[in-house]
Amino acid sequence: MMMQTPLTMTQMINRAERFFPKKEVVSRTASGIQRFTYKQIAERTRKLAEALQKLGVERGDKVGTLAWNHHRHLEAYFAIPCSGAVLHTINIRLSPQHIVFIINHAEDKVLLIDSDILPLIEAIKDKIPAVKAFVIMTDEPELPETTLSNVYHYEKLLDEAAGGYEYPDDLDENAPAGMCYTSATTGNPKGVVYSHRGIVLHSMALGMADSAAVSEKDIAMPVVPMFHVNAWGLPFAAVWFGTNLVMPGPYFTPKLLAELIQEEKVTITAGVPTIWLGLLKELEENTYDMSSLRSVLCGGAAAPKGMIKAFEQKYNIPFMHAYGMTETSPLVVISTLKSYQEELSYEEKVEIKAKQGILVPGLEMKVVGKDGEVAWDGKEMGEFAIRGPWIASEYYKDERTSDAFRDGWLYTGDVVTIDEEGFMKIVDRTKDLIKSGGEWISSVDLENALMAHEAVFEAAVIAVPSEQWQERPVACVVLKDAYKGKIEKEELNEFLKPQFAKWWIPDDILFLEEIPKTSVGKFLKMALRDQIHKNYAGTN
Amino acid sequence: MMMQTPLTMTQMINRAERFFPKKEVVSRTASGIQRFTYKQIAERTRKLAEALQKLGVERGDKVGTLAWNHHRHLEAYFAIPCSGAVLHTINIRLSPQHIVFIINHAEDKVLLIDSDILPLIEAIKDKIPAVKAFVIMTDEPELPETTLSNVYHYEKLLDEAAGGYEYPDDLDENAPAGMCYTSATTGNPKGVVYSHRGIVLHSMALGMADSAAVSEKDIAMPVVPMFHVNAWGLPFAAVWFGTNLVMPGPYFTPKLLAELIQEEKVTITAGVPTIWLGLLKELEENTYDMSSLRSVLCGGAAAPKGMIKAFEQKYNIPFMHAYGMTETSPLVVISTLKSYQEELSYEEKVEIKAKQGILVPGLEMKVVGKDGEVAWDGKEMGEFAIRGPWIASEYYKDERTSDAFRDGWLYTGDVVTIDEEGFMKIVDRTKDLIKSGGEWISSVDLENALMAHEAVFEAAVIAVPSEQWQERPVACVVLKDAYKGKIEKEELNEFLKPQFAKWWIPDDILFLEEIPKTSVGKFLKMALRDQIHKNYAGTN
Repeated sequence: MMMQTPLTMTQMINRAERFFPKKEVVSRTASGIQRFTYKQIAERTRKLAEALQKLGVERGDKVGTLAWNHHRHLEAYFAIPCSGAVLHTINIRLSPQHIVFIINHAEDKVLLIDSDILPLIEAIKDKIPAVKAFVIMTDEPELPETTLSNVYHYEKLLDEAAGGYEYPDDLDENAPAGMCYTSATTGNPKGVVYSHRGIVLHSMALGMADSAAVSEKDIAMPVVPMFHVNAWGLPFAAVWFGTNLVMPGPYFTPKLLAELIQEEKVTITAGVPTIWLGLLKELEENTYDMSSLRSVLCGGAAAPKGMIKAFEQKYNIPFMHAYGMTETSPLVVISTLKSYQEELSYEEKVEIKAKQGILVPGLEMKVVGKDGEVAWDGKEMGEFAIRGPWIASEYYKDERTSDAFRDGWLYTGDVVTIDEEGFMKIVDRTKDLIKSGGEWISSVDLENALMAHEAVFEAAVIAVPSEQWQERPVACVVLKDAYKGKIEKEELNEFLKPQFAKWWIPDDILFLEEIPKTSVGKFLKMALRDQIHKNYAGTN
Repeated sequence: MMMQTPLTMTQMINRAERFFPKKEVVSRTASGIQRFTYKQIAERTRKLAEALQKLGVERGDKVGTLAWNHHRHLEAYFAIPCSGAVLHTINIRLSPQHIVFIINHAEDKVLLIDSDILPLIEAIKDKIPAVKAFVIMTDEPELPETTLSNVYHYEKLLDEAAGGYEYPDDLDENAPAGMCYTSATTGNPKGVVYSHRGIVLHSMALGMADSAAVSEKDIAMPVVPMFHVNAWGLPFAAVWFGTNLVMPGPYFTPKLLAELIQEEKVTITAGVPTIWLGLLKELEENTYDMSSLRSVLCGGAAAPKGMIKAFEQKYNIPFMHAYGMTETSPLVVISTLKSYQEELSYEEKVEIKAKQGILVPGLEMKVVGKDGEVAWDGKEMGEFAIRGPWIASEYYKDERTSDAFRDGWLYTGDVVTIDEEGFMKIVDRTKDLIKSGGEWISSVDLENALMAHEAVFEAAVIAVPSEQWQERPVACVVLKDAYKGKIEKEELNEFLKPQFAKWWIPDDILFLEEIPKTSVGKFLKMALRDQIHKNYAGTN
């Protein structure tokens, strides 16, 4: 029989060190651009693993990161799982109360924090008592002033490491390697735990010729944050394959991305539509050499056809649509044309490219309509369900697991069609979530908050399309009779502001006479959207 | 956590049927070229699975194939493992006694046989009593005359199938899927059992951009026989990815291969150096359009630098060297250049391409010299050892397992160097096997046979390089004093002929005064080779 060698992440960083020691990680941090070879990264990663062990991190312990895309975060990506602990990437854009929840729910023992994110943690420090140590990722030689205790300097920890640390060789492939929380329709975020096996197989999928084809010959720039589904797994795959990485760091602008692509000769980059919209505007305003780019990978929300065409026709940059979610590691479908589709006209091809794509090898899918699996005709709609070794089987210690995971399948909540060629296209969402700039906004949470206002009878929050942010929330409010004509939208906005992150506040509040409802009394959001979208067509 | 969906082969054939029903298999059989869509192949494959079940094949049963590369063999490649049985591909070039041994050792319950191979089985039928049924793969409407009993017609079995067969959905990823026997230094062949998991992961490796990058866009022609390590896994990968397949069938000539490449626009093909030498000669004699070829994959023995240069420089056909063995599924290393090596001169690049290559993601390797692991300097030599999920852990029911499998590693018996960039190059073999035209010849078996002759004192058989066959055996014989000068090489040849396949007979027999030996009395074959090679340099 075959050897029972486990699919663990240790082989990935070891391969980079042994076979690609000269290849490079270009890292933009607060103080500028730094360059490291994989030899250096691998050595620093082992030192980080040693340092975490000294801080008391044991097998199975969770180590949280609150950090941008840079080399230290990359080191954490391997040091934590390869030493047997669990890399918990925390979405720094969540509300403070959600961050408190997930740090406590995950039981993070140590947090690795970018210095500019420190104030966020200082503000909640009394609510996360289980955290034993805070490690600050900074370029500065000394720690910043902080109200935290048990604070360590990342570089000093590495300097103090004895060296010679070896990763354990007895990790189980099904052991947890990472975790990430995703926004819920309502309530607290839900945790997804990634296994070594899932990450290894997902990385192989990213490297396959018919998928993203990540290769040693690439120079990859993950723009999608490393706190979002492991930056779609790109850092894992890149290290394994010896691919040069360009990490764009904090607070980047479209201009900065364009400069990095030009100067570092980036070949593949990945991000949400909002990012690419910004890049397009920058390309229109200034001239850059984008000829190194072989693929702009776009996911997280549907890319408009016009954007795909602008990239491909105006700038000759191949655009690749993909689909996935936190629960799916994330790669599920990717819009690579079949060989015989290459012979279609460009207009026909862009119709296909605007679909989410075709299932990558290794997964299974089905689309379940009201009468069972739908026909593959591009018309019949159903909920998209997925199964496979890099698909979550549950939410971490969460009773909402049964909402999405049934009969061994993940029901995604996305309503889709499948065409004759097997290409999936999202047509609606069963979930009441609004996707703004790659982040989720819960319409239900906003509705509940609005309905808590004394003047509000009922409220429905829907997504309106936004060229810049993909979607933005708009609230439809029915006032109680006694308040009709006496309340302005500003008052409701002010009422919401203390309760939510700034970017959650609806762009507009419309006062309606009634909210259309389904037969069972649920808001009929599809009808409401049709009604409201007409008002917004062409206004942004 | 992640779903525990198993890595089984069922997903491969299902994906071809659902996503690539229009893609094609071009199959050359005894009666000419036939074309099938994957839709047809998938339907026929399910019918074959049903038919085998009716013949009494149960989970875990072995089903042997004695067949060339064609669509029916491809159907067997999936019908057998996907129904839970074990695909046992039998090397039809082995001696009849070895074929008898492996059919009995594997306990094959059913044999699928090409009609031209039928005489071989008829000759041994009384020695393989455990085989319950013989299925003849033929284009003819009726069975050929045969002395076998329990004989079935492949196409009639398919015609009689009810249809609607479904593969079991509870296969374990570690269950056996296939098996193949490999020649031993001496004695009977040794069996290797492939698991579903191993085949799935190996197929992913073949699809990776930095490996063979097998893609839906390819048209793949496996020239390496399907009875040799699953035609290097190419049929599995091709079906999974929806890649068009061109199956060259029995008794092909270089001319036929060239025509198939030209007419079917083959993009990738795979075979041993002897095949490519033949193709080169054909290209020199006649004119073909080879522009569709993006890669000639060459393994099984080292490809001479001159051949690589002829393909690449004279015919502009990219040549890709790889290395593996029956025990390794087989892909282990592949000679794809690193990005910065692309900037070298062609002469420097061809030096790298002539090495066996760099380790594919998913495996681990080490090179063990007499003082532990050797330096990566391209000079220090050691035995190449491998570990990973598509590497065998044992020989099937064989006490010779411990010869090669130690401490969780497969020791390959190949003496290699590793250069600074991690490229492996074979410099010698510890095994006493001679590789002729992609097949193994056991020098030890020939030596033992020779030494059984009354006139022979001792005999050593070594490999001499052959342009056409890669290596050919030459015997070095020391005669007993009483026979010196009284025996001609023809007499010894005649003595060997009844005992071995024709191509095993040494090309030459040299009479020496003594055989150089090591301090412990073993033949010092390296010294012998040096001595003899001088005689043969430039003669073939």
